[in-house]
Amino acid sequence: MKTSLVWNLGYCDTESSMPKETFAAKVPGSVQLDYAAAYGLPDYRFETNFEQYRWMEDKYWVYSAEYDARNTDLPYLRFIAKGIDYKYDIYVNETKKFSHEGMYRTVILDLNEYIGKIVTLKIVVHPVPKSNVGLPSPNTRDEQNQCCKPAVSYGWDFHPRLIPLGIWEEAYIETSSLPEHIKPNISYTLNTKRDVAALSLRVNVDENVKWRFVDPDGKVIFEGVSPSENFEIASPLLWWCNGYGAPNLYTWELTVPCGDTEETFSGKIGFKTVSLEMNANTWSLPDFPKSRSCPPITLCLNGIPIFAKGSNWVCPEIFYSELTPQRYREQLQLVKDANMNILRCWGGAIVNKESFFDLCDEMGILVWQEFPLACNNYHATEHYMELLKCEANDIIDRVAGHACHAIWCGGNELFNSWSGMTDQSLALRLLNSITFERTPNIPFLATSPLMGMGHGSYLFVYHNGKEVVEVMQHSNNTAYTEFGVPAFSNLDCLQQITDLKNLFPMVANDVTCAHHGFDAWGKGQTWCSKDTIQSYFGESNSLEQLVNRGQFLQKVGYRFIFEEARRQKPHCSMAINWCFNEPWPCIANNSVICYPNSIKPSYYEIAKACRPVAATARYRKLRYRAEEMLEFDLFLLNDGVSPLDPMEIVVLVQVGNEDPVRIMTWEVPYIEANTNFSGPTLRYCLPVISNAETCKIILAAGDASSEYTLLYNCPQHIAPKKKTLNM
Amino acid sequence: MKTSLVWNLGYCDTESSMPKETFAAKVPGSVQLDYAAAYGLPDYRFETNFEQYRWMEDKYWVYSAEYDARNTDLPYLRFIAKGIDYKYDIYVNETKKFSHEGMYRTVILDLNEYIGKIVTLKIVVHPVPKSNVGLPSPNTRDEQNQCCKPAVSYGWDFHPRLIPLGIWEEAYIETSSLPEHIKPNISYTLNTKRDVAALSLRVNVDENVKWRFVDPDGKVIFEGVSPSENFEIASPLLWWCNGYGAPNLYTWELTVPCGDTEETFSGKIGFKTVSLEMNANTWSLPDFPKSRSCPPITLCLNGIPIFAKGSNWVCPEIFYSELTPQRYREQLQLVKDANMNILRCWGGAIVNKESFFDLCDEMGILVWQEFPLACNNYHATEHYMELLKCEANDIIDRVAGHACHAIWCGGNELFNSWSGMTDQSLALRLLNSITFERTPNIPFLATSPLMGMGHGSYLFVYHNGKEVVEVMQHSNNTAYTEFGVPAFSNLDCLQQITDLKNLFPMVANDVTCAHHGFDAWGKGQTWCSKDTIQSYFGESNSLEQLVNRGQFLQKVGYRFIFEEARRQKPHCSMAINWCFNEPWPCIANNSVICYPNSIKPSYYEIAKACRPVAATARYRKLRYRAEEMLEFDLFLLNDGVSPLDPMEIVVLVQVGNEDPVRIMTWEVPYIEANTNFSGPTLRYCLPVISNAETCKIILAAGDASSEYTLLYNCPQHIAPKKKTLNM
Repeated sequence: MKTSLVWNLGYCDTESSMPKETFAAKVPGSVQLDYAAAYGLPDYRFETNFEQYRWMEDKYWVYSAEYDARNTDLPYLRFIAKGIDYKYDIYVNETKKFSHEGMYRTVILDLNEYIGKIVTLKIVVHPVPKSNVGLPSPNTRDEQNQCCKPAVSYGWDFHPRLIPLGIWEEAYIETSSLPEHIKPNISYTLNTKRDVAALSLRVNVDENVKWRFVDPDGKVIFEGVSPSENFEIASPLLWWCNGYGAPNLYTWELTVPCGDTEETFSGKIGFKTVSLEMNANTWSLPDFPKSRSCPPITLCLNGIPIFAKGSNWVCPEIFYSELTPQRYREQLQLVKDANMNILRCWGGAIVNKESFFDLCDEMGILVWQEFPLACNNYHATEHYMELLKCEANDIIDRVAGHACHAIWCGGNELFNSWSGMTDQSLALRLLNSITFERTPNIPFLATSPLMGMGHGSYLFVYHNGKEVVEVMQHSNNTAYTEFGVPAFSNLDCLQQITDLKNLFPMVANDVTCAHHGFDAWGKGQTWCSKDTIQSYFGESNSLEQLVNRGQFLQKVGYRFIFEEARRQKPHCSMAINWCFNEPWPCIANNSVICYPNSIKPSYYEIAKACRPVAATARYRKLRYRAEEMLEFDLFLLNDGVSPLDPMEIVVLVQVGNEDPVRIMTWEVPYIEANTNFSGPTLRYCLPVISNAETCKIILAAGDASSEYTLLYNCPQHIAPKKKTLNM
Repeated sequence: MKTSLVWNLGYCDTESSMPKETFAAKVPGSVQLDYAAAYGLPDYRFETNFEQYRWMEDKYWVYSAEYDARNTDLPYLRFIAKGIDYKYDIYVNETKKFSHEGMYRTVILDLNEYIGKIVTLKIVVHPVPKSNVGLPSPNTRDEQNQCCKPAVSYGWDFHPRLIPLGIWEEAYIETSSLPEHIKPNISYTLNTKRDVAALSLRVNVDENVKWRFVDPDGKVIFEGVSPSENFEIASPLLWWCNGYGAPNLYTWELTVPCGDTEETFSGKIGFKTVSLEMNANTWSLPDFPKSRSCPPITLCLNGIPIFAKGSNWVCPEIFYSELTPQRYREQLQLVKDANMNILRCWGGAIVNKESFFDLCDEMGILVWQEFPLACNNYHATEHYMELLKCEANDIIDRVAGHACHAIWCGGNELFNSWSGMTDQSLALRLLNSITFERTPNIPFLATSPLMGMGHGSYLFVYHNGKEVVEVMQHSNNTAYTEFGVPAFSNLDCLQQITDLKNLFPMVANDVTCAHHGFDAWGKGQTWCSKDTIQSYFGESNSLEQLVNRGQFLQKVGYRFIFEEARRQKPHCSMAINWCFNEPWPCIANNSVICYPNSIKPSYYEIAKACRPVAATARYRKLRYRAEEMLEFDLFLLNDGVSPLDPMEIVVLVQVGNEDPVRIMTWEVPYIEANTNFSGPTLRYCLPVISNAETCKIILAAGDASSEYTLLYNCPQHIAPKKKTLNM
């Protein structure tokens, strides 16, 4: 039986002192939010209020609660906490019973000796860890390089420095007639042909129990009574990711006698195999001296090569204690509805609560899970190696066995100059080793990107002056595991930051910088990109117009990159944009969803780009002049599990509001399942149409139809032309 | 006390049958050699005699020996075997006591129950393992893909198919008053500054012992009596590789009381740290999308970046049982005298006997040790994974702790199409994991080459028609871990193969093919390259002339590549040619030493190229016409640990027997230690000299002097010119 506790909280400056005042604490929760609620601090999301929360990272925070065990009639009493952030000591009736560093540990504290007494629990949470190992400067994200808290909390280009502390997962008292906390362990192996699943059901009790195993249709297919049962399922329904089949889940139920009564547990399990295979055309090498081939990044699910389409998940809240199944579900449903099949759970953020993985299981969303390393050099001190080993094992406990779990990764961008780690880094050798020992059937990547895979860029016009449309069609990567195009947040999101009238004209100031409109990624206009917007559209007359124009570029960019990555299949096998969500309201960001859950227009374009079957055009650039040649290559993209019957695709071009001109009827033949088809390259000389500002490529192909809006005769673009005319 | 046994040997067709006849066996030895000695088989090295040995790979071989323990007066009796090749059962008085697969296990068999009796030992060695997992065809090296025998034994481009079996390491009876075989365990850690070594001396006995620890000058610096001692050495003399300092070794001595007497053990230990650091200019990446940087391959010894110069060691004998400290020493002395500092112990061959590592410790030769995987795809069957784990641990026991040991590597060319393994291959994840657990301070490479590192080519004129001199100066690798230039063996080696008169004219036949003159690497003239030789020199008139001409090309090629790799320092940090030695007499091969120990002329050129300080010229190609411009870049290469004082280098060119012409005096300034200096590019129009066949570049620079002999007006080369003249 579970009993929640009523917690109080206070802070002090040293480990041994006691808080002067205490106030109510929410569990799960964060000390900063509890303090803010108690003392009326303004919303950290508004303007620069978050700075008023900063001091809290350096305090000791003392949680306390009482449990009256005087009338406890069951023989076993335990305190269970599923995650405390980050370094802490637990005292029971003033005696220190447990100390730990790490936020992913499930603590199970035996309190039997206190039965018949009043139990006082005290949890002292230590200040935020700040490394000084190999540090170039203080107050930077490098301070995270000796701990397993999320690096993003220390400040990122979409996240302020605001570092949560507290009991971030469920915590409660358990009374029981069983000597041990119940831990069911369900595992399976699939045979080579995947037509037999061998199940193992285990639970840590000594007596008879009741097991039931139910198929996805609700039919009971196994019942047993031993704490350890094994059985086989012939022709099991496999778990498939979104777009490739149903995410079939079986249900296990366990009933354990518990004194006069009994307790029931249940969970889901999906059968799948996953591997990373070599991408097409990567084995061949140039002439001698020969080096190695690029590593494999084609994800095979149940033996079928998947084109992985998805996004980087960076956490929908700064205070991750606030994440609930409902909060996860509203965003994961959007992931699924965008025809995505994978999330890269980026190493700068937390490893999510288990409900996240339950929902991904249910929705058919593959999870690439990184360990909490990102962009820093995690020096292999004795303390860090011990800590990482411990946290990695706790993370594996949390994630492993979920049907959705497809890839382990050591962390983000560790093999680049700004991190400085290499294949020789002991932290990464440790993670390879632990994951190999515990989950050998899940692939492990040391980091992202690896050779052949690409990260970036994150702008519509790159630092070298080239447009994303131009760069991407000349790229040749095996996977695009990060790429971004920034856009302003929607107005409903922006007004969480400040009064909208403060945002136009859009200029750099404390608020717009703090919320990543300026100086977010290096110095300059990241992420607002207002000069880029102006270079395409001229001066904007209102915030709404500026926002719309920026969001138009994001739509164009994301649609193009997702489709281009798919056009490069099978050499390319993955497209994962940076990023899906954001943890607080940003002025502008690469995200597709703005805080807390507002959909940017690019979302719908990505959803189209990720349809299993899509007719697409690879055009050369975004803007054209009258009488210029519009050139584009046609592709019919098929990630579908079925072949496509022959079809007709009508290709039209429309300038301004003129009638669309049919320029071709493309006769597409029968196409194999999971195979693209390259069509012709079309050229069309754009007519002179006065007052037109756009031209459209329209591919009429039923459900696979596409429409691309390009810019026509925009004043900024044709201005330089005048010179030539005057000559 | 050790007692050798007298062994008999016989063979049979099944595991349960008994040999019909037996004959004397040598231990250490190989069954093939014993059989050949007993039945007068001709030398396997002559012509195609090795084919007469082939049938033996499919037999069960039964060793037997007797030990009279009736008068044994010590309480403990053991059988010890330091390596049996490959799968075997050990019977004592007809009872099976031990079964094992793997050649690197030290077997310690308790025979106490037989004291007072006559002990009959029988060792049944199983036939050669032949995999059928994922096999394209039988009788190829792929048959090795489920075992840990050396792949080379199954046939390679310098090795016939001839697969040893037998007790290949020392085996003996031990009587003792101590219950366990003595296993001293000496380890140390160096602090970060490397100025304190913390020693741990351990031995598996319960009583007091005598320890002595002696510094490299012979001075006793520690004495102790406990089976477990710890002490520190301040300012220890570090172990350095050849060319960078003395290979300082300390000596430990252990005296253990053993009944009325005592036994003494001793060994050497050297203090060093080793790491792989990023090569110069490898962190920077091209434009977005950004991938990863090439992995690190600059070997740092005691914090100092080393230019690793060395060779691939492929084993000096087909029957590796025959390797003795003396046999190792004669070749390792040559390695050292060639100014080399590293050997890559290639994964196709055995892991050497421990005396090899003792000698490398003593001579300052770094060892890159591969696990026994090469070019195949080692599928992760349950059997193979168990076996590999077992053998890997036994190999680590053999190698770890040796001062010379610098790098672990998973095996040879596993990430190339002809193998098909990847970073995801479980066999390699296992090896990374085991080496991390047991020897975290020794770098691990999954395979060679990795990205940025180069293998090949292996010809003077590449398959694409380009000369090695041209290709290498345009290569840009971080390390060259294999590169070869073939040459005929010396005449004294060739006459071990057949009567020399059979070798001229050199044509493909059973003998010249079997000994790798033809069809060794694909079809054609590997390794004799007679058409290439003819294209430079015209028809040869004798075997001696043909051999000399081929060896000339090898001299030129190897000298150029070693120097060129050094010129590319610091981006390049390693040059390891393919290969040093050969296991039997080859007609031609990339080796520098021919069987058994005959030095090819290229050896002396490599020794010059590897001098710590060398003046070198990067010329464009080997052959020139009269009136053609001879162009070359000057470099002073300094791998030395000291800076170089300013010096004058006189540059001369000599055509034929004319007097050398001084074309420049290069004033070289002060140069930092361990740093190259780039000089000018010189151009000299070659004069017309009748009857001259060579021109020389001479760099007169004292000990750093160099001389390059190039070809001048060779008839084959100038022939096409005539066309132009006739126009």
